[in-house]
Amino acid sequence: MDPDAVAKAFVEHYYRTFDSNRAGLVGLYQEGSMLTFEGDKFLGPAAIAGKLGSLPFQQCQHTVITVDCQPSGPQGGMLVFVSGSIRTGPEDHPLKFSQVFHLLPTGGSFFVQNDMFRLNYG
Amino acid sequence: MDPDAVAKAFVEHYYRTFDSNRAGLVGLYQEGSMLTFEGDKFLGPAAIAGKLGSLPFQQCQHTVITVDCQPSGPQGGMLVFVSGSIRTGPEDHPLKFSQVFHLLPTGGSFFVQNDMFRLNYG
Repeated sequence: MDPDAVAKAFVEHYYRTFDSNRAGLVGLYQEGSMLTFEGDKFLGPAAIAGKLGSLPFQQCQHTVITVDCQPSGPQGGMLVFVSGSIRTGPEDHPLKFSQVFHLLPTGGSFFVQNDMFRLNYG
Repeated sequence: MDPDAVAKAFVEHYYRTFDSNRAGLVGLYQEGSMLTFEGDKFLGPAAIAGKLGSLPFQQCQHTVITVDCQPSGPQGGMLVFVSGSIRTGPEDHPLKFSQVFHLLPTGGSFFVQNDMFRLNYG
Protein backbone atom coordinates (compact mmCIF):
# COMPACT_ATOMS: atom_id res chain seq x y z
CA MET A 1 0.00 0.00 0.00
CA ASP A 2 1.40 3.36 -1.06
CA PRO A 3 0.23 5.89 1.57
CA ASP A 4 0.42 8.81 -0.85
CA ALA A 5 -1.79 6.95 -3.33
CA VAL A 6 -4.30 6.10 -0.59
CA ALA A 7 -4.33 9.73 0.56
CA LYS A 8 -4.84 11.00 -2.97
CA ALA A 9 -7.68 8.54 -3.58
CA PHE A 10 -9.33 9.48 -0.29
CA VAL A 11 -9.08 13.19 -1.03
CA GLU A 12 -10.56 12.76 -4.52
CA HIS A 13 -13.40 10.66 -3.11
CA TYR A 14 -14.09 13.06 -0.25
CA TYR A 15 -14.38 16.25 -2.28
CA ARG A 16 -16.20 14.57 -5.19
CA THR A 17 -18.78 13.32 -2.67
CA PHE A 18 -18.91 16.70 -0.93
CA ASP A 19 -19.56 18.49 -4.22
CA SER A 20 -22.10 16.01 -5.67
CA ASN A 21 -23.87 14.30 -2.73
CA ARG A 22 -22.92 15.93 0.55
CA ALA A 23 -25.15 13.59 2.60
CA GLY A 24 -23.02 10.67 1.39
CA LEU A 25 -20.10 11.86 3.54
CA VAL A 26 -21.77 10.48 6.68
CA GLY A 27 -20.49 6.98 5.90
CA LEU A 28 -16.88 8.14 6.23
CA TYR A 29 -17.29 8.93 9.96
CA GLN A 30 -17.78 6.67 13.01
CA GLU A 31 -19.16 7.26 16.52
CA GLY A 32 -15.96 8.79 17.94
CA SER A 33 -15.23 10.91 14.89
CA MET A 34 -14.69 14.63 15.40
CA LEU A 35 -15.09 17.62 13.11
CA THR A 36 -13.84 21.10 13.92
CA PHE A 37 -15.25 23.46 11.31
CA GLU A 38 -14.07 27.07 11.56
CA GLY A 39 -13.56 26.49 15.29
CA ASP A 40 -16.94 24.82 15.99
CA LYS A 41 -16.78 21.22 17.24
CA PHE A 42 -19.02 18.30 16.26
CA LEU A 43 -18.85 14.70 17.55
CA GLY A 44 -20.12 11.62 15.71
CA PRO A 45 -21.56 11.02 12.23
CA ALA A 46 -25.00 12.52 12.88
CA ALA A 47 -23.68 15.83 14.24
CA ILE A 48 -20.99 16.03 11.55
CA ALA A 49 -23.39 15.29 8.70
CA GLY A 50 -25.84 17.77 10.21
CA LYS A 51 -23.22 20.50 10.16
CA LEU A 52 -22.05 19.74 6.63
CA GLY A 53 -25.65 19.59 5.42
CA SER A 54 -26.49 22.92 7.01
CA LEU A 55 -23.75 24.91 5.29
CA PRO A 56 -25.41 27.88 3.62
CA PHE A 57 -24.89 26.95 -0.01
CA GLN A 58 -26.48 24.32 -2.20
CA GLN A 59 -23.65 23.79 -4.63
CA CYS A 60 -19.92 24.01 -4.26
CA GLN A 61 -16.77 23.00 -6.03
CA HIS A 62 -13.49 22.15 -4.32
CA THR A 63 -10.18 22.43 -6.13
CA VAL A 64 -7.30 20.64 -4.43
CA ILE A 65 -3.89 22.34 -4.62
CA THR A 66 -1.66 20.23 -2.32
CA VAL A 67 -2.02 16.88 -0.53
CA ASP A 68 0.52 15.82 2.10
CA CYS A 69 0.39 12.50 3.92
CA GLN A 70 2.19 10.83 6.83
CA PRO A 71 1.58 7.63 8.82
CA SER A 72 0.26 8.74 12.22
CA GLY A 73 1.74 6.04 14.44
CA PRO A 74 1.40 2.40 15.50
CA GLN A 75 -2.40 2.31 15.03
CA GLY A 76 -1.91 2.21 11.25
CA GLY A 77 -3.53 5.58 10.78
CA MET A 78 -2.73 8.25 8.29
CA LEU A 79 -2.67 12.03 8.44
CA VAL A 80 -3.78 13.82 5.29
CA PHE A 81 -3.23 17.57 4.98
CA VAL A 82 -4.97 19.36 2.13
CA SER A 83 -4.87 22.89 0.80
CA GLY A 84 -7.21 24.09 -1.89
CA SER A 85 -9.94 26.48 -2.84
CA ILE A 86 -13.71 26.29 -2.71
CA ARG A 87 -16.23 28.07 -4.91
CA THR A 88 -19.84 28.15 -3.72
CA GLY A 89 -21.48 29.75 -6.73
CA PRO A 90 -20.66 30.40 -10.37
CA GLU A 91 -20.05 34.09 -9.74
CA ASP A 92 -18.41 33.78 -6.34
CA HIS A 93 -14.77 34.37 -5.69
CA PRO A 94 -13.01 31.12 -4.69
CA LEU A 95 -11.93 30.94 -1.05
CA LYS A 96 -8.71 29.25 0.06
CA PHE A 97 -8.98 26.53 2.67
CA SER A 98 -6.82 24.07 4.59
CA GLN A 99 -8.10 20.78 5.99
CA VAL A 100 -6.62 17.95 8.04
CA PHE A 101 -7.95 14.40 8.11
CA HIS A 102 -6.79 11.65 10.44
CA LEU A 103 -7.77 8.33 8.88
CA LEU A 104 -7.84 5.13 10.93
CA PRO A 105 -8.09 1.63 9.48
CA THR A 106 -11.38 -0.27 9.65
CA GLY A 107 -12.11 -3.53 7.85
CA GLY A 108 -9.72 -3.09 4.96
CA SER A 109 -10.57 0.56 4.50
CA PHE A 110 -10.33 3.79 6.50
CA PHE A 111 -12.70 6.05 8.40
CA VAL A 112 -12.20 9.68 9.40
CA GLN A 113 -11.31 9.89 13.09
CA ASN A 114 -10.40 13.60 12.97
CA ASP A 115 -11.38 16.36 10.57
CA MET A 116 -10.40 20.02 10.96
CA PHE A 117 -11.32 22.67 8.41
CA ARG A 118 -10.30 26.31 8.15
CA LEU A 119 -10.76 28.99 5.54
CA ASN A 120 -7.55 30.92 4.89
CA TYR A 121 -8.47 34.51 4.51
CA GLY A 122 -6.11 36.47 2.28
CA MET B 1 -5.72 18.47 31.44
CA ASP B 2 -7.50 20.84 29.07
CA PRO B 3 -6.42 19.82 25.53
CA ASP B 4 -7.01 23.30 24.15
CA ALA B 5 -4.77 24.81 26.83
CA VAL B 6 -2.05 22.23 26.14
CA ALA B 7 -2.28 22.92 22.42
CA LYS B 8 -2.07 26.65 22.93
CA ALA B 9 0.94 26.29 25.25
CA PHE B 10 2.67 23.98 22.77
CA VAL B 11 2.06 26.37 19.87
CA GLU B 12 3.37 29.35 21.83
CA HIS B 13 6.47 27.38 22.84
CA TYR B 14 7.09 26.05 19.35
CA TYR B 15 6.98 29.36 17.50
CA ARG B 16 8.79 31.29 20.24
CA THR B 17 11.60 28.71 20.03
CA PHE B 18 11.52 28.79 16.21
CA ASP B 19 11.84 32.57 16.17
CA SER B 20 14.49 32.90 18.89
CA ASN B 21 16.56 29.69 18.92
CA ARG B 22 15.65 27.49 15.97
CA ALA B 23 18.19 24.79 16.93
CA GLY B 24 16.27 24.28 20.18
CA LEU B 25 13.38 22.70 18.27
CA VAL B 26 15.33 19.43 17.91
CA GLY B 27 14.31 18.37 21.42
CA LEU B 28 10.64 18.30 20.44
CA TYR B 29 11.18 15.44 17.96
CA GLN B 30 12.03 11.75 18.45
CA GLU B 31 13.53 9.06 16.20
CA GLY B 32 10.31 8.25 14.35
CA SER B 33 9.22 11.87 13.97
CA MET B 34 8.36 13.11 10.51
CA LEU B 35 8.39 16.56 8.94
CA THR B 36 6.87 17.37 5.56
CA PHE B 37 7.93 20.90 4.64
CA GLU B 38 6.44 22.27 1.43
CA GLY B 39 6.18 18.66 0.20
CA ASP B 40 9.73 17.58 1.15
CA LYS B 41 9.97 14.78 3.72
CA PHE B 42 12.39 14.46 6.64
CA LEU B 43 12.63 11.62 9.19
CA GLY B 44 14.07 11.90 12.69
CA PRO B 45 15.36 14.80 14.80
CA ALA B 46 18.68 15.25 12.99
CA ALA B 47 17.15 15.49 9.51
CA ILE B 48 14.31 17.70 10.76
CA ALA B 49 16.61 20.07 12.64
CA GLY B 50 18.92 20.12 9.60
CA LYS B 51 16.06 21.22 7.36
CA LEU B 52 14.77 23.85 9.77
CA GLY B 53 18.29 25.17 10.30
CA SER B 54 18.92 25.41 6.57
CA LEU B 55 15.93 27.61 5.78
CA PRO B 56 17.24 30.62 3.87
CA PHE B 57 16.59 33.32 6.45
CA GLN B 58 18.31 34.17 9.71
CA GLN B 59 15.42 35.79 11.49
CA CYS B 60 11.71 35.23 11.31
CA GLN B 61 8.57 36.04 13.21
CA HIS B 62 5.47 33.83 13.32
CA THR B 63 2.05 35.27 14.12
CA VAL B 64 -0.57 32.67 15.03
CA ILE B 65 -4.11 33.34 13.80
CA THR B 66 -6.02 30.14 14.68
CA VAL B 67 -5.28 27.01 16.77
CA ASP B 68 -7.57 23.98 16.58
CA CYS B 69 -7.04 20.83 18.63
CA GLN B 70 -8.53 17.32 18.80
CA PRO B 71 -7.52 14.13 20.63
CA SER B 72 -6.13 11.79 17.97
CA GLY B 73 -7.24 8.42 19.36
CA PRO B 74 -6.52 5.82 22.04
CA GLN B 75 -2.76 6.53 22.13
CA GLY B 76 -3.44 9.75 24.04
CA GLY B 77 -2.17 11.90 21.23
CA MET B 78 -3.34 15.28 20.11
CA LEU B 79 -3.72 16.92 16.72
CA VAL B 80 -2.95 20.62 16.59
CA PHE B 81 -3.84 22.61 13.48
CA VAL B 82 -2.42 26.11 13.17
CA SER B 83 -2.90 28.93 10.70
CA GLY B 84 -0.84 32.06 10.80
CA SER B 85 1.63 34.25 9.02
CA ILE B 86 5.41 34.40 8.91
CA ARG B 87 7.64 37.38 8.27
CA THR B 88 11.28 36.70 7.44
CA GLY B 89 12.60 40.25 7.38
CA PRO B 90 11.54 43.68 8.58
CA GLU B 91 10.65 44.80 5.07
CA ASP B 92 9.24 41.51 3.81
CA HIS B 93 5.59 40.90 3.18
CA PRO B 94 4.18 38.35 5.65
CA LEU B 95 3.32 34.96 4.13
CA LYS B 96 0.32 32.91 5.26
CA PHE B 97 0.96 29.36 6.39
CA SER B 98 -0.87 26.32 7.76
CA GLN B 99 0.77 23.67 9.91
CA VAL B 100 -0.34 20.41 11.50
CA PHE B 101 1.30 18.80 14.52
CA HIS B 102 0.52 15.35 15.89
CA LEU B 103 1.70 15.25 19.50
CA LEU B 104 2.16 11.95 21.33
CA PRO B 105 2.65 11.60 25.08
CA THR B 106 6.10 10.87 26.50
CA GLY B 107 7.03 10.97 30.17
CA GLY B 108 4.45 13.52 31.28
CA SER B 109 4.95 15.71 28.25
CA PHE B 110 4.52 15.44 24.48
CA PHE B 111 6.78 15.03 21.47
CA VAL B 112 6.02 15.84 17.83
CA GLN B 113 5.31 12.60 15.94
CA ASN B 114 4.07 14.36 12.78
CA ASP B 115 4.67 17.86 11.44
CA MET B 116 3.38 19.15 8.10
CA PHE B 117 3.94 22.72 6.93
CA ARG B 118 2.57 24.57 3.91
CA LEU B 119 2.67 28.14 2.78
CA ASN B 120 -0.73 29.33 1.56
CA TYR B 121 -0.14 31.45 -1.50
CA GLY B 122 -2.78 34.10 -2.01
